[in-house]
Amino acid sequence: MLQKIGVLTKEELDTLKKALKEIEELWKKGDFKVTRSQEDGHTAIEQYITEKYGEVGKKIHTGRSRNDQSMTMIRLYSLEQLRLIRQLASDLATAAEARVSDFNAVAMPGYTHMQRAMPTTVGTWLGSFAQGWRDSTKMLDGAIGVLDQNPLGSAAGFGINGLALDRAETAKLLGFQTVQSNPMYCGLSRGMFENVALQAMSLAMVLSSRFATDMMMFTQQETLFLALPDNFVTGSSIMPQKKNYDLFEIMRANGKVFGSLQMQIQETIVGLGSGYHRDLQCTKKAFVEACNLEAIAAGLEA
Amino acid sequence: MLQKIGVLTKEELDTLKKALKEIEELWKKGDFKVTRSQEDGHTAIEQYITEKYGEVGKKIHTGRSRNDQSMTMIRLYSLEQLRLIRQLASDLATAAEARVSDFNAVAMPGYTHMQRAMPTTVGTWLGSFAQGWRDSTKMLDGAIGVLDQNPLGSAAGFGINGLALDRAETAKLLGFQTVQSNPMYCGLSRGMFENVALQAMSLAMVLSSRFATDMMMFTQQETLFLALPDNFVTGSSIMPQKKNYDLFEIMRANGKVFGSLQMQIQETIVGLGSGYHRDLQCTKKAFVEACNLEAIAAGLEA
Amino acid sequence: MLQKIGVLTKEELDTLKKALKEIEELWKKGDFKVTRSQEDGHTAIEQYITEKYGEVGKKIHTGRSRNDQSMTMIRLYSLEQLRLIRQLASDLATAAEARVSDFNAVAMPGYTHMQRAMPTTVGTWLGSFAQGWRDSTKMLDGAIGVLDQNPLGSAAGFGINGLALDRAETAKLLGFQTVQSNPMYCGLSRGMFENVALQAMSLAMVLSSRFATDMMMFTQQETLFLALPDNFVTGSSIMPQKKNYDLFEIMRANGKVFGSLQMQIQETIVGLGSGYHRDLQCTKKAFVEACNLEAIAAGLEA
Amino acid sequence: MLQKIGVLTKEELDTLKKALKEIEELWKKGDFKVTRSQEDGHTAIEQYITEKYGEVGKKIHTGRSRNDQSMTMIRLYSLEQLRLIRQLASDLATAAEARVSDFNAVAMPGYTHMQRAMPTTVGTWLGSFAQGWRDSTKMLDGAIGVLDQNPLGSAAGFGINGLALDRAETAKLLGFQTVQSNPMYCGLSRGMFENVALQAMSLAMVLSSRFATDMMMFTQQETLFLALPDNFVTGSSIMPQKKNYDLFEIMRANGKVFGSLQMQIQETIVGLGSGYHRDLQCTKKAFVEACNLEAIAAGLEA
Repeated sequence: MLQKIGVLTKEELDTLKKALKEIEELWKKGDFKVTRSQEDGHTAIEQYITEKYGEVGKKIHTGRSRNDQSMTMIRLYSLEQLRLIRQLASDLATAAEARVSDFNAVAMPGYTHMQRAMPTTVGTWLGSFAQGWRDSTKMLDGAIGVLDQNPLGSAAGFGINGLALDRAETAKLLGFQTVQSNPMYCGLSRGMFENVALQAMSLAMVLSSRFATDMMMFTQQETLFLALPDNFVTGSSIMPQKKNYDLFEIMRANGKVFGSLQMQIQETIVGLGSGYHRDLQCTKKAFVEACNLEAIAAGLEA
Repeated sequence: MLQKIGVLTKEELDTLKKALKEIEELWKKGDFKVTRSQEDGHTAIEQYITEKYGEVGKKIHTGRSRNDQSMTMIRLYSLEQLRLIRQLASDLATAAEARVSDFNAVAMPGYTHMQRAMPTTVGTWLGSFAQGWRDSTKMLDGAIGVLDQNPLGSAAGFGINGLALDRAETAKLLGFQTVQSNPMYCGLSRGMFENVALQAMSLAMVLSSRFATDMMMFTQQETLFLALPDNFVTGSSIMPQKKNYDLFEIMRANGKVFGSLQMQIQETIVGLGSGYHRDLQCTKKAFVEACNLEAIAAGLEA
Repeated sequence: MLQKIGVLTKEELDTLKKALKEIEELWKKGDFKVTRSQEDGHTAIEQYITEKYGEVGKKIHTGRSRNDQSMTMIRLYSLEQLRLIRQLASDLATAAEARVSDFNAVAMPGYTHMQRAMPTTVGTWLGSFAQGWRDSTKMLDGAIGVLDQNPLGSAAGFGINGLALDRAETAKLLGFQTVQSNPMYCGLSRGMFENVALQAMSLAMVLSSRFATDMMMFTQQETLFLALPDNFVTGSSIMPQKKNYDLFEIMRANGKVFGSLQMQIQETIVGLGSGYHRDLQCTKKAFVEACNLEAIAAGLEA
Repeated sequence: MLQKIGVLTKEELDTLKKALKEIEELWKKGDFKVTRSQEDGHTAIEQYITEKYGEVGKKIHTGRSRNDQSMTMIRLYSLEQLRLIRQLASDLATAAEARVSDFNAVAMPGYTHMQRAMPTTVGTWLGSFAQGWRDSTKMLDGAIGVLDQNPLGSAAGFGINGLALDRAETAKLLGFQTVQSNPMYCGLSRGMFENVALQAMSLAMVLSSRFATDMMMFTQQETLFLALPDNFVTGSSIMPQKKNYDLFEIMRANGKVFGSLQMQIQETIVGLGSGYHRDLQCTKKAFVEACNLEAIAAGLEA
């Protein structure tokens, strides 16, 4: 792109490509280090190239700010996570649907108010979660529709004046469906789109927490509709016959931890005006943690 | 439906229709009362008809539980609110988009870290919110896709055995796109679907809170890019020249109140197992309040 | 006070006292109305006196702003609630402690991971909550220590210049332990002190929610350690033998609703700068609702 | 203690003391490792001693469960943090109070609704926060009063039967004011006491967030009442004259992150019944993170 618009000559482009290839090789071998004074990989890359290949290294940051790159990386990560979780939710629904008919004849009491109420079947119970997991893909599709736009080229939120960057081309190269054209909207969407992503993931997470609560009750000694093999449970050194379903307790608690991470992001952004604020940096950790919890939950249930 | 499947004779159906018509008329005149011992309208209607027309009145609750009706009404209300808010968000985006070109040449400083950073325009600023309001319709569409299924006929979550109710027909009559077939899923979705609806509304609400924060800053005496006419502001008896933008303070705070109502519903359901729990009743008030805040915010911004 | 510092003559004071007495009588009979255009009781009182007794009516608002009065009333209400709940928590602890010895010999399984673990007694179980309720009074004492200071006289947060109001005297008359001397701190504490009050109430509320969860499990048909008489439970028209402990479901859910109301207040104030903001008004409803939930919980458990 | 009650002989006690001393030395040199299969330090210590000194190593876990030790360590950590933060809040209040008189004559506009309202002074403004920091110590004292009781000896929540452990003696040795006598209450307080500790810390945290918001506004170019030296601010490579107060943005955001961590713990425990649940493990990370945020905030402000 930078060559196309005349910022780089053919020779400079080749040098940069070669240098980046070298860095990639060093990284793989664990020999490329980012020092504390460099702060991040962007500076480390620029310094490496400048030291070895001279002035051309400085041209590598033309037309983009650190903010811009950071936002683009988070966007790509968010979309990857949304697609991964959509796949997991869909697989889970398919797996559950496939088992429903096996259990349609297995009677089980239906509970209301935690008291036995009317007869139902294990198939109906499992099918209710299957439909929930299936429905959760619809919200995920909505969020993918919102996030699938490329912020690269918005710089610090006010665009790149004087550089004829082809944002449609970079969007295509990075696999985005479209360009997020308004540069202030790119900035405004930081944190806000992560919030959208978590809200779309939330239905599957709430379901896994409720599924875990059912499993806790159905595996109690007093009820014992279900039991898992010993390799899924933990024991107690002083009570060898006891089976602890820690697995479901963690799954149940994760639904609550997820909710608070989601709230953390929403509360951090909700009163902020337009333009970049350092507060937004605090949303990154919560977002990555929440995505991981979601992926773990889907994996456990499957 | 009840006549079709042989529960009611043609005469009984006519009697019931006539009785319901009467009740509607009384209601409009304010003469139909629900007493405390009747608890709700369902019982009041049944008693009115039974007293006046005899045994046929008791047949009116055949094939449905109170829970079932309550859930169906909440579903209809949720969809109505989602569609209303989708319309408001879309209108707002259209209105803002229409004004963008008027302000594209009006320069304004862009802020980062609450400090003046680079030049931008009022058009770019307004356009960033316009795109956000437009994007918010995508999440609302996702939620409508999840909720648009009829729970009527699931009874207390275990279905109606022995009655050949045509659920597809009632779904069509009530305007639902499809039937929510698994009766336990109908129960499981209570509270959970309200949560989905609020999450989909949340983007527009977060935007209105951030818009309000910008407006607060832009209308400060020190900045004063913008001012509203006197009928939009409040004054102070001891400082007559002062303009208070209470409007935006309420809008900003409502974004936070909305977030906590959303969390209230999510936290109430997240650890609950399957089957009806009275806890779910506590989600109703929060849901209605949150929908109202959302509608007010959209109206204010417009 | 106003007479003491020379704002009112002896005659004017007597007239105002007489007028306020009249208003009190009218209010008790339901004949004193606040119209929408008057906005609140302060204006209604002033207008009533001015119409009937002339200019002296206008002097009634000397040395205080509406904000000031509103803040003082909320402070008095908060302290009253804190003291009420402290009393209820203490009574509850005493009542539970008194029953512990009755049940010390009644064996019951102790649960971990929702599975039967080691033997314990009903007395030990009840005693664990008794100690919790007792401990909750310590946080309530801490909060009373924070809130027990009189904001009256801070006006809009910048004090009353030129009027020699004796704030120590009004503090004494209103029953406050001390004066909140810094007028900006009076303003800053709005919402923030309500948050402190709810945090101090929270331990008792969390305990009641956990107590309710235990009760739900111990009254399940599968476990049935405990049962309540029929007048405490609800039934089901189609399953007459069923006992539903709605009471405990509501108690359990209220713990979550309370938590979200607490968060609502905290999130509303957390990013606000000094000085009055209209956002603060939104904390009032949540605070009153949360106090009511707390009082209900304590009453139910008792 | 174990020797006193006859579990260990004098020789065994000496051997264990010697072994623990060795482990301490190894640990300091970085040569004591906990392997993944050992899970935690308790097992690692026991295995080291058993391998080197034989059967006496196994006696080291007599009369305590892993749960018990874990809870005691968290309690000690919580109290240490509460006392540290109490000290920091008190120092901060003292430091601010000392500066108030320097600024009592420095005029500054007082704001309401983010608009200039009435004149005030920098001393009054600073004094308002000083009083808040002072008041925050009262809630911290309340929480210390709740937490200062020793859970050691409660085992898995059902006590140690048959062993005459002197809990008063271990409480004294560990520096606790009293024993938490009811073993089920020890278990019940897990997570719940961490919640109490965070609620008591919350006032100082809310204050630091509001202080940061004021500082953001007062350091804006348009207002510029205050400025910090260059080593406190960050710059912008393309706008060298710009001063960014990232410091205050992080401080403002941390108030929100803190609130959500607090809510995370509360929501995790609020619906849990008595007895240990694995969910409680999820509260540890949030608690440590929240304590760190609090300490950072106090340090930054000072």
